[in-house]
Amino acid sequence: MGKYNQFAGQNLDRLAAISDGIFAVGMTLLVLDLHTPAATLIHSDSDLWRNLAELAPNLAVYVMSFLTLGIFWVGRQTQLNLLIRADRNLAWLHLGFLFCVTLMPFSTQLIGSFIQYRAALLIYWANILLLGIGLLGAWRYALHAKLVPEDLPVVTHKGVERRIITAQALYAAGAALCIINTYWSLGFIVLVQLNYVIAPKIGFLRKL
Amino acid sequence: MGKYNQFAGQNLDRLAAISDGIFAVGMTLLVLDLHTPAATLIHSDSDLWRNLAELAPNLAVYVMSFLTLGIFWVGRQTQLNLLIRADRNLAWLHLGFLFCVTLMPFSTQLIGSFIQYRAALLIYWANILLLGIGLLGAWRYALHAKLVPEDLPVVTHKGVERRIITAQALYAAGAALCIINTYWSLGFIVLVQLNYVIAPKIGFLRKL
Amino acid sequence: MGKYNQFAGQNLDRLAAISDGIFAVGMTLLVLDLHTPAATLIHSDSDLWRNLAELAPNLAVYVMSFLTLGIFWVGRQTQLNLLIRADRNLAWLHLGFLFCVTLMPFSTQLIGSFIQYRAALLIYWANILLLGIGLLGAWRYALHAKLVPEDLPVVTHKGVERRIITAQALYAAGAALCIINTYWSLGFIVLVQLNYVIAPKIGFLRKL
Amino acid sequence: MGKYNQFAGQNLDRLAAISDGIFAVGMTLLVLDLHTPAATLIHSDSDLWRNLAELAPNLAVYVMSFLTLGIFWVGRQTQLNLLIRADRNLAWLHLGFLFCVTLMPFSTQLIGSFIQYRAALLIYWANILLLGIGLLGAWRYALHAKLVPEDLPVVTHKGVERRIITAQALYAAGAALCIINTYWSLGFIVLVQLNYVIAPKIGFLRKL
Repeated sequence: MGKYNQFAGQNLDRLAAISDGIFAVGMTLLVLDLHTPAATLIHSDSDLWRNLAELAPNLAVYVMSFLTLGIFWVGRQTQLNLLIRADRNLAWLHLGFLFCVTLMPFSTQLIGSFIQYRAALLIYWANILLLGIGLLGAWRYALHAKLVPEDLPVVTHKGVERRIITAQALYAAGAALCIINTYWSLGFIVLVQLNYVIAPKIGFLRKL
Repeated sequence: MGKYNQFAGQNLDRLAAISDGIFAVGMTLLVLDLHTPAATLIHSDSDLWRNLAELAPNLAVYVMSFLTLGIFWVGRQTQLNLLIRADRNLAWLHLGFLFCVTLMPFSTQLIGSFIQYRAALLIYWANILLLGIGLLGAWRYALHAKLVPEDLPVVTHKGVERRIITAQALYAAGAALCIINTYWSLGFIVLVQLNYVIAPKIGFLRKL
Repeated sequence: MGKYNQFAGQNLDRLAAISDGIFAVGMTLLVLDLHTPAATLIHSDSDLWRNLAELAPNLAVYVMSFLTLGIFWVGRQTQLNLLIRADRNLAWLHLGFLFCVTLMPFSTQLIGSFIQYRAALLIYWANILLLGIGLLGAWRYALHAKLVPEDLPVVTHKGVERRIITAQALYAAGAALCIINTYWSLGFIVLVQLNYVIAPKIGFLRKL
Repeated sequence: MGKYNQFAGQNLDRLAAISDGIFAVGMTLLVLDLHTPAATLIHSDSDLWRNLAELAPNLAVYVMSFLTLGIFWVGRQTQLNLLIRADRNLAWLHLGFLFCVTLMPFSTQLIGSFIQYRAALLIYWANILLLGIGLLGAWRYALHAKLVPEDLPVVTHKGVERRIITAQALYAAGAALCIINTYWSLGFIVLVQLNYVIAPKIGFLRKL
């Protein structure tokens, strides 16, 4: 039994390692969409400033995607820290989640190029939704398969779920705003993200 | 002797680390084959949807390759967890296996571009075959060099081997289907993969 | 309480892991800006030597960026080693710092292409400045939130801060030299970096 | 003192982690030079086979570079395993070594494109030479700064050095063969590498 737990512990370590690796590569690949201006366009300092200013929307999209991956990295880390062991099914649920992480550079490039089209916005949102489903699915399975400590407080257990579901509801509301305008959608999604990153002390926001 | 084991333990950790790193980069690089549509082709939301729909085969190939790498990552993890120490030869056998992992983005790009040609299918299958040979070779060597615990149950020992050989027989059968059609081959390979991922409760499949 | 520390320890490990991953990918991606000469230009060994010699400025910029990332990697490592636990806010402060790390390949490509323009130099310097602010902010927060051992010597605490601030003052002085010439700026920045890497035994430099 | 060793231990872990990360990314990036044939050239299975066959030299160069990085990864791992602590200077010596690792994808692309020119061969060899100097320098420093156990057998100490110097002498001999022909050089270098990987039981080769 001691040996079993030891193996399971190694499994958790390896799951964390492949996961950190994929997040690290994904987060760094995002920058490949920030292209430096073509040398033929630049004949003075002011040309360069002007061309760099035109990258602002791409930089904003990049920040947004980094926030997205950061939020899900923190969420995954919290989950893995609560587990006492892993099994094969959990590994595959996490790999499914990581697959959605690897799609993020594609979704980011798409919305960076076609920010005015709903298709790009909805694909981006679908990527966030899949990440949420992946995280929630892995957590539900971990509870079901008793991969958490027996004395895990109900408040923790419920807290993890509620946090994912509330966030996804807000992202869905943001995506729905694309009926008006894709820029409204993106702005709303970034606000939701900043709320989770900064975790303001304002009462009702804090409960989200 | 205590010191020797300590060094050997560090070797296993480092082997696992380089291995997780290569799998993580390989899995994330696969997405670089999903190219967003050229901006000049897109003048409306429906243009964008249509162009994204055309990416479906590439996405399918991407999912297949992610499954392939995921299956071999789980296989390698299971093996490393069963070892109690590593040596220089094992390190090189694993590096050979990892070389085949780094080839997967190339094979994936090949089959994504030339899905209708047998050459692409056979190269892809050869990559899977080499991964299997690498994994089996490393395992056989580990048994031979007594890198596993002395009390490793025969059922575990045989189980690891049988699992690899059965899977490779099924992949070979899938590859052989390219006599009919490469799409049949790919479909069969994906079914085999899903069988290993989902591990269904249906009797005869479960024994595979 | 024992359990709490255990979780916190895992947090520090994971923070170190994602951080090492992002630094590793960032440092390796820098090389993608070193393009081999176009095959059509090369008809003899001397053609190849001449074209490779033209890469010298790009190689110099590459070395400089590797030094920059190396210096901040050492700085981050020193900080993480002094911490006894992590929390959610620290994780986000470190992710902000890592975001600036992922921007370095872009800044490097920019200055490699437009070395004669102040805009490129100032963006590069802004990237270094943001890295410094990120590191200092994370450290100040760690002190404030008592993530360091209670008996951390004041000399260590002050030493970490002074080191970052002195370095940033020197980098700012280097950036200011672009009023004269961007090459003077770059030269000065590289000298500052070498001072930190080699840590010479010469009295007044040693105190920096 | 216990605390000091604990910090030092963490330093070694982090040094190993950034190092494994850079090796993993470098080894995987090598494959980006294997380009799939242009779709416009392929109209049949035999077109595809023919175009893939033309990739054989690139694949051979890729294998050679993977062997190079594998050999130096094993060498670095052996060194790090012998150390009991790290310091700031050792970290920078290892970062210098890792810089040479990140150059390997460039050198590989160069020799893959210009295999017939001595310039490409000599740059590739210079990269191997720098890797050897980096590894030897880090080891000499570790001995000098007493980062190894006091009871490290002289035979181990001398063995690490002799192994690096012998290998570099053989690589230099290989490079010198480019006076005759660059293909002879490459062939000889690959033979030296295979000797280190396979470590044959043949008497005089075994002593290398």
